[in-house]
Amino acid sequence: MNVLVVNGPNLRRLGTREPEKYGTTTHDELAVLVTQWGADLGLDVEVRQSDDEADLVHWMHESVDSGTHVILNPAAFTHYSYALRDACALVSSAGLSLVEVHLTNPHARETFRHTSVISGVASGTIAGFGIDSYRLALEAVARRVG
Amino acid sequence: MNVLVVNGPNLRRLGTREPEKYGTTTHDELAVLVTQWGADLGLDVEVRQSDDEADLVHWMHESVDSGTHVILNPAAFTHYSYALRDACALVSSAGLSLVEVHLTNPHARETFRHTSVISGVASGTIAGFGIDSYRLALEAVARRVG
Amino acid sequence: MNVLVVNGPNLRRLGTREPEKYGTTTHDELAVLVTQWGADLGLDVEVRQSDDEADLVHWMHESVDSGTHVILNPAAFTHYSYALRDACALVSSAGLSLVEVHLTNPHARETFRHTSVISGVASGTIAGFGIDSYRLALEAVARRVG
Amino acid sequence: MNVLVVNGPNLRRLGTREPEKYGTTTHDELAVLVTQWGADLGLDVEVRQSDDEADLVHWMHESVDSGTHVILNPAAFTHYSYALRDACALVSSAGLSLVEVHLTNPHARETFRHTSVISGVASGTIAGFGIDSYRLALEAVARRVG
Amino acid sequence: MNVLVVNGPNLRRLGTREPEKYGTTTHDELAVLVTQWGADLGLDVEVRQSDDEADLVHWMHESVDSGTHVILNPAAFTHYSYALRDACALVSSAGLSLVEVHLTNPHARETFRHTSVISGVASGTIAGFGIDSYRLALEAVARRVG
Amino acid sequence: MNVLVVNGPNLRRLGTREPEKYGTTTHDELAVLVTQWGADLGLDVEVRQSDDEADLVHWMHESVDSGTHVILNPAAFTHYSYALRDACALVSSAGLSLVEVHLTNPHARETFRHTSVISGVASGTIAGFGIDSYRLALEAVARRVG
Amino acid sequence: MNVLVVNGPNLRRLGTREPEKYGTTTHDELAVLVTQWGADLGLDVEVRQSDDEADLVHWMHESVDSGTHVILNPAAFTHYSYALRDACALVSSAGLSLVEVHLTNPHARETFRHTSVISGVASGTIAGFGIDSYRLALEAVARRVG
Amino acid sequence: MNVLVVNGPNLRRLGTREPEKYGTTTHDELAVLVTQWGADLGLDVEVRQSDDEADLVHWMHESVDSGTHVILNPAAFTHYSYALRDACALVSSAGLSLVEVHLTNPHARETFRHTSVISGVASGTIAGFGIDSYRLALEAVARRVG
Amino acid sequence: MNVLVVNGPNLRRLGTREPEKYGTTTHDELAVLVTQWGADLGLDVEVRQSDDEADLVHWMHESVDSGTHVILNPAAFTHYSYALRDACALVSSAGLSLVEVHLTNPHARETFRHTSVISGVASGTIAGFGIDSYRLALEAVARRVG
Amino acid sequence: MNVLVVNGPNLRRLGTREPEKYGTTTHDELAVLVTQWGADLGLDVEVRQSDDEADLVHWMHESVDSGTHVILNPAAFTHYSYALRDACALVSSAGLSLVEVHLTNPHARETFRHTSVISGVASGTIAGFGIDSYRLALEAVARRVG
Amino acid sequence: MNVLVVNGPNLRRLGTREPEKYGTTTHDELAVLVTQWGADLGLDVEVRQSDDEADLVHWMHESVDSGTHVILNPAAFTHYSYALRDACALVSSAGLSLVEVHLTNPHARETFRHTSVISGVASGTIAGFGIDSYRLALEAVARRVG
Amino acid sequence: MNVLVVNGPNLRRLGTREPEKYGTTTHDELAVLVTQWGADLGLDVEVRQSDDEADLVHWMHESVDSGTHVILNPAAFTHYSYALRDACALVSSAGLSLVEVHLTNPHARETFRHTSVISGVASGTIAGFGIDSYRLALEAVARRVG
Repeated sequence: MNVLVVNGPNLRRLGTREPEKYGTTTHDELAVLVTQWGADLGLDVEVRQSDDEADLVHWMHESVDSGTHVILNPAAFTHYSYALRDACALVSSAGLSLVEVHLTNPHARETFRHTSVISGVASGTIAGFGIDSYRLALEAVARRVG
Repeated sequence: MNVLVVNGPNLRRLGTREPEKYGTTTHDELAVLVTQWGADLGLDVEVRQSDDEADLVHWMHESVDSGTHVILNPAAFTHYSYALRDACALVSSAGLSLVEVHLTNPHARETFRHTSVISGVASGTIAGFGIDSYRLALEAVARRVG
Repeated sequence: MNVLVVNGPNLRRLGTREPEKYGTTTHDELAVLVTQWGADLGLDVEVRQSDDEADLVHWMHESVDSGTHVILNPAAFTHYSYALRDACALVSSAGLSLVEVHLTNPHARETFRHTSVISGVASGTIAGFGIDSYRLALEAVARRVG
Repeated sequence: MNVLVVNGPNLRRLGTREPEKYGTTTHDELAVLVTQWGADLGLDVEVRQSDDEADLVHWMHESVDSGTHVILNPAAFTHYSYALRDACALVSSAGLSLVEVHLTNPHARETFRHTSVISGVASGTIAGFGIDSYRLALEAVARRVG
Repeated sequence: MNVLVVNGPNLRRLGTREPEKYGTTTHDELAVLVTQWGADLGLDVEVRQSDDEADLVHWMHESVDSGTHVILNPAAFTHYSYALRDACALVSSAGLSLVEVHLTNPHARETFRHTSVISGVASGTIAGFGIDSYRLALEAVARRVG
Repeated sequence: MNVLVVNGPNLRRLGTREPEKYGTTTHDELAVLVTQWGADLGLDVEVRQSDDEADLVHWMHESVDSGTHVILNPAAFTHYSYALRDACALVSSAGLSLVEVHLTNPHARETFRHTSVISGVASGTIAGFGIDSYRLALEAVARRVG
Repeated sequence: MNVLVVNGPNLRRLGTREPEKYGTTTHDELAVLVTQWGADLGLDVEVRQSDDEADLVHWMHESVDSGTHVILNPAAFTHYSYALRDACALVSSAGLSLVEVHLTNPHARETFRHTSVISGVASGTIAGFGIDSYRLALEAVARRVG
Repeated sequence: MNVLVVNGPNLRRLGTREPEKYGTTTHDELAVLVTQWGADLGLDVEVRQSDDEADLVHWMHESVDSGTHVILNPAAFTHYSYALRDACALVSSAGLSLVEVHLTNPHARETFRHTSVISGVASGTIAGFGIDSYRLALEAVARRVG
Repeated sequence: MNVLVVNGPNLRRLGTREPEKYGTTTHDELAVLVTQWGADLGLDVEVRQSDDEADLVHWMHESVDSGTHVILNPAAFTHYSYALRDACALVSSAGLSLVEVHLTNPHARETFRHTSVISGVASGTIAGFGIDSYRLALEAVARRVG
Repeated sequence: MNVLVVNGPNLRRLGTREPEKYGTTTHDELAVLVTQWGADLGLDVEVRQSDDEADLVHWMHESVDSGTHVILNPAAFTHYSYALRDACALVSSAGLSLVEVHLTNPHARETFRHTSVISGVASGTIAGFGIDSYRLALEAVARRVG
Repeated sequence: MNVLVVNGPNLRRLGTREPEKYGTTTHDELAVLVTQWGADLGLDVEVRQSDDEADLVHWMHESVDSGTHVILNPAAFTHYSYALRDACALVSSAGLSLVEVHLTNPHARETFRHTSVISGVASGTIAGFGIDSYRLALEAVARRVG
Repeated sequence: MNVLVVNGPNLRRLGTREPEKYGTTTHDELAVLVTQWGADLGLDVEVRQSDDEADLVHWMHESVDSGTHVILNPAAFTHYSYALRDACALVSSAGLSLVEVHLTNPHARETFRHTSVISGVASGTIAGFGIDSYRLALEAVARRVG
C-alpha cells in the first residue's frame, strides 16, 4: 500500500445519509471505486473508515512509520479534533502528502463547518466534488509519487 | 426495544459524583428506574452508557437501522462533539425522536455549558429535572409512539 | 390554583401564526387542554397570556405571594427581558418550580433565539414538543408537588 | 414636587426579595424614608414604582414638562431598555438632573449587569450603598437646586 | 382604514425633542400631515403612537385581522424588541406591507442604533428623510395597493 | 442632468440574475423607467452602471463638481468599499442628496449583507421595494429640489 | 485620620486640564475643600495624589493596617490596573469602605472608559457630579462610620 | 472555449514573487501548461489574468452568457471582494462549474487568508498543490463535462 | 501504585516527533525515567499512554476509586475535551492531586494552544520544562503525600 | 525616477475635500511640492494618483521592475485592499522602501480607520503631519538611498 | 547570587491577604524558606518584592547583566504589564531561565486571571501549589544549572 | 530646551536587546545623535529614558508647563498605559506637538503590538525607520517650530 484513504465519523453511512447532499454511492462502493482509481494511477490504495478519533490518530502514526501518503476526509472531526490535527502534522512533517478531502463544500453549509482545524497542517485541500474529490486527491498524490 | 436511552461520558459515576448536584441515584439504579418507567408507558427501553464518543455515534446509527427512538444525555459531549451531532441528525432525519436530556440546568452552571452543539438537531430538549428528565422524555416519546 | 401557566407575547395568535411551525391549536384550545391535563394530574391550573412584559412580571410576583408553581413560555421575552428574569428568580428562590417551556426548538431557528436570559434562573427547561411541552411541564410539577 | 424618584421593575418586592442582598426595608418604608430625607434637604419628593417600561418612559416625559429632577433606579431595565434611555436623554437635555442609582454594586454581580444603557445619558451614577444610594442622590440634587 | 401608521416610544415628544435632529413638527401635526398625504394617495390612514411595547404588538395583531398595511417607526424598540419583531413577522407573513421608517439615519448616530431587530422581517425600510420618510412609505404602500 | 442614478457591480445582469429575487426588469428597462419617473417629477435623470469601483468613485466626484444629487445602489460594494464611502461623503458634505437604495432588503439575506459601510454617510436609505426603491428615491430628491 | 482620599494619575493637573470638562478647581483647592467637608462630617480626612501605581497600591495597604476607609478616584488606572484592583480588594475584605469616585461620567466618554477593573471590588461607585462626587462619597462613609 | 481560467491580482508576477512559496513557473508558462493540460482532457481552455476586480466580474458575466465553466484563483480578492462573490454566484446558479483554486494552502498562512468570501458560492475548492491545483481543477471540470 | 502518570494523544511518538521541540527521549524511556524518579521519591508510579479520550476518562475514574494521584499531560485534549475535564474534576473533588503537565510552553506556540479546558479543575499546572515537567510534578505530589 | 509617490482614492480631491481636515493644498500643488522636495534631496520623484485599485497594484509591480522606492498614501484602500497589500509586499521583499503615509492621524478618526492592512508589509509608517508627511517620507528614503 | 526570586504587587501582604486562598506564610517567612530551599539545592537565592512595575523591569535587566536566573511571580502584572513582558523576554533571550510561578491556579479564579502576557516569553510556568510552587521552580532551575 | 525626547520601558537596553531587530546603537549613543540632530535643526533637545510609567506621566506635565514639544517612544506602554495617554492628551491639547515614534514597525510584530492607546491623542506617528524615526520626528517638530 502506498496511499491510505481515511474516512472519519458517520461516513460509513454514505449512500443512505442525506443522499441528495452526499450522493447514493455507499461506503463499500466508494472503497471499490477509490481502490480502482488508485490502481489506474499505479497506486496501491487502502480505504478505512472509523467513527473513533483514536483510530484515525493511530492510522496517521502508521502512515508515518510505513511512509504512506494519506487522503483524509475528517468529517465532523474537521471542526474540533486537535488530536487528529497533531497526528496529521506528523504525516506532513515526515514529508508525506496529507490531502484533506470533503464530499461537499463546507462553506456552503452551517457556520460551524467553515472552521477546519486540519487545513493548517494539510498539504492541500479538495472540497465539493462529491466522490470525485477522492479521485482528484489520488491524482494529486500520483503526480507527487510519479 | 423501541427506545434507546444513551448516557454520555462520566455518567457511569452517577450517585457518587457531586451528589448534591446530580443526586444519589447510581447509574444502575437509574437504568432500572428508566426501564420500569418505560414499561409503565408501554415502551421497551434499553439503557446504555459510554465514555467513548464512537460508541455513542454507533448507537445512533443502530437506532436509525432499527427504527428506535433515542433519549440522549450527551453530558460533556454536548459542548463540542460535532461527530455526535452529525450522528444525531441521522436519527432526526429518519423521522425518529431524538430527545436531548440533562439532569441539571446547564444554563445555571459554567459558561461553557451554555453551548449545545446537539440541540440544533434534537426533536426537543428537557433539562434540569434530575432523573425526572428521563421520565419526561419517555413520556414525550410515548405520546409520539402511542 | 396551584399552577400558573403563563404565555408571553404573540402566543395569543397560536393556531393562526405559522401553523406549520406552531400547530393549529388555538390559544383558547390550548388553555382548555392544559387545564384538563392539569386536572388529570390533580393540579389546579390557570392559563394566562399577555404581550405585556409588566403583566408577566406581576404574575411572577403573585405566584410568589400565593405559593404557586409557574410554567412559563416567555416567547420573544426569552431573548432580552431581564426584568422578567429577575421576576422569575423571585419564584425560584421562593422554592417554587419555574419551568421554561417552548413549543418549538429555539436552537433549530434563528441565531438570536439561541440565547435565553431566563434559563439561568429556571428550575428546568422543556422545548420542542409542541403543545406537549406544556403537558410534560405539568407532569414535572405534579411529581414535585405530589 | 421638585424631585421624582422612580423605581423600576421588581423593586416593589424590596424587603422580601433576597434581603441579604437588598436589605429588609420594604418599598413603602423606602418611600417614607426618601420623602423625609428630601424634606430635610428642602426638596419636595415623590416616589413611584412600576414594572412597566412605558410608565417609566411617561414619567420622564412628565419630569421634562414640569421641570422636575429625576432619581432613577432602572433595575433590570438598566441593561436593555433603549426606550428608557431615550426618555432619560430628554430629561438630561432639558437641563435637569437624571441621577442613576443602584442599591447594590452591579459590577460585583452577573456579567450582564455590568452593562448599563442608561449611564451614557445620566448626569451621574451612585451605586452600591443600599438605600443610602437614594439619600446621596437627593443630596446631589439638593446641591444643584440649592 | 387601510394603512396604520405606528410610532413607537418617545415619538409623542416630536417637535420638542432635539428639534435640530428631529425637526419642529409635533406629533399631532405629523398625524394631520400623514393622514392628508394618505388621502391624497387614496389611502385611509390612521396614526397611533405609544410608548408601550404591548400596544405596538397588539396593533400589529389588529392589522393582520383587518388586512391593514403598516408603516412602523419602532424608535428605540428597533434595537431590542424581539416581541415586536415577532408581531411584525405576522404582518409580513399575512401578505401585508410592513414598512419600517426612521426620521433620521440610524447609521449616522450611536453604534447601538446600527442594529435593527425589525429590518429582517420588514417588507422594506426608509430612513433619514425626516417626516418625508412617512410620505415615501405611504407612496410605497399606495403603489402596492393601487 | 440634476440627478445621477448609479448602479454598482452585477446590476447590469438585472432581469436575468435570480429573477425571483430581483424581478424580471432588465437594467436597460430600469434605466428607461427611472428616467421617465424622473421626468414626471421634473427631474433630469441619468442612469449609469459599472462594476468598477473607480467609476463609481469618479461619478461621485462629478456629481460634486456639477451639483448633482445622487441615487446610489452600491450593490456588493455596500459591504466593504470604504473608497466609495469616502467619495459619497464628498457628495453629502457638498450639501447634495446621496440616497442609498437597494432592490431587496439586505437584512433578510446573508449576514454579511447586514453591514453597510455606505449608510453612515448617506442622506437616507430606501431598501426592499424592488425597482420602486428608485421611484421613492426620486421622489425624495424631487421634494428636496422642488 | 479615618478617611484617606486618593487621587490617581493626572489629577494633580485638575483645574488646568480641560476645565470645561473637569472644572476650574485645582487639586490643592480640592484637597482643602474635601478636608473641610470631612471635618464638617466629623471625619479626619487626608488627601493624596500620585501618578504612580505603586503609591496607590501602598496607600491601600496602609489603609488596611490603620483601619482607614478609602475614597479612590483611580483616574486612568480604572481601566487596566489589576494591581490596584487587588490592593482595593484587600481594603474591602478588611471590612472597610472603598468608594470609587469619578468627576465625570465615564459612560458619556470614550469607549475604553466604560470598563472599570476597580468597580467589581468597590463598596460603591459615585460618578459624574464633579467635585461633589467626593462630598457624596464622604457622606457615604460618614453614615457608615457614624 | 469551454473553460475559462481566471487569475486574480498579483498572479502576473508568478515565478518572480516569492518563488520558494509560489514556484518558479511564470504566468505565461502556466498559461501554456494549463492550456495543454486542458487540450489533453479535451477541453478548450483560455487563461486570463487581471489585477482589476471589474475585469474578473465581467469575465464571470461572459462565462454565464457563453456557458463556460470557470476555474478561478481569486488571489487577494478571496478575502474581501463581495462583488466578485456575487458574480461567481451567477456562474454557479447558471449550472456551470466555478472551481476556486489556490497555489498554496491559505490556512497555513496569515490569519486574514483563512477567510474566503468566494468559497460559499463555489462548486468546489482545490488548494495547496502549486500549479497542479489547476490541473486537478481541469480534471474536475472535464469529468463533469465528459 | 499511588501515582498514575497519564499521557494523551500522540505522546507515544515522543522522541521521533519534532525532537527539536519535544526532545529525543522516547515514551518508553520516559516511562522508565518517571517510574525511577517516583521510586526515588518513595512513590509507586505507573505510566500509561493513550490516544483515546475514553481511556483517559476511565483512568481518571480508576484513580478516584483507588485513591491514586494523577499527573496528566492531556496533549491536544487540553484544548477541547470537556469529557476529560469533567473526569478530572472527579479526581480533584475526591481530594486527590491532579497535576496538569506539558513538555513545552503552550503559550509560546499557536494561539489555539493558549486555551486549556483542563486547568480550571487541576490542582496545579507545570509547563515548559521538557521531561523535567514530570519530575517536578512527582515532587509536588510527593510533598503532598509525604 | 527613483521614488514613486502614489496617492489612492479620493486624494485627487485634495484642497477641496474637508479642507479643515486635509488642508487647502490641491493635489497638483502637492505634486509640485513633493517633486521639488525630492529634487532638494537629490531624488527623482514622480507623483501619481488613482482611484483604481488595479492602477495602484500595477504601479507597485512597476516599482519592483525598475527598482524604485515607493511612498504610498493608500487612503481608503488602507482598510481593506489585500490586493494592494500583496503588491506592496512585492516591493518590500524586493529590498525597496515602501513607506505608508497619511495626511491625518487615522487613530483620531472613525474606528474603521484604525485598521491598516498595509502597515504589516510597509517599511515604515508616517501619519498625521499633513503634507509634511510626504516630506518626511522623502527624507526617510533619501537617507536610505544616500 | 545565582537565582533571583521576584514577587510582584500585593505579595508583601502574604499571610494576611485571604489566608484561606494564599496560606498563612508571610512574605518574610517565604523569603527565609525559599532561600533555605535554594541553599539545599546549592543555589544562592535572593528574594525581592515590589509593587512597582519599574522595579520588576529593572531587576530583569540586572539579571541579564549578572547572568542570574529568575523565578517570577508577577501577581496582577501577569494580566497586563507588557513592559514586564518585554523585560522578561530579555532574560529568556539571554539564555537564562525565567520561571513564572503562581501560588494559586489562575484558571480556577476570575476570567481576567486566565490571561497571562508573561507566559509567552517564560521558560516555563508552575502554578497552583501554594508556596511549593517556588520550591518546584528552584528545583527546575537547579537541574538546569547543575 | 524646546524638544523633549522620551523613551519608555526597556529602551535603556538599546544596542544589546535583540540588535538584529533594534540595531546596535546604544541608548547613550542615541541620545548623543538625537541631541546633535536637533542642534543641526536649531532645536534644543533633551533625551530622557525611564521604565517608570509615573516618570513619563510627569515629563508630559513638565512639557505642558514649559511649552516643550515631545517626541515619545512609549515602547510597551503603547499597548495599555491609559495614564500615559491622558498625560499625552494634555500635551496635545496645550497646542504642542506630541509625536509618537517606534524603532520598528509594530504591525509587523505580535498582534498585541498592533494596538496603540497613544496614537489617538498624538499629533502624528512615525514608525519603522530604526533610529531615523527620531530624526524624522525632529524634522517634523522643527518645521512646526520654524
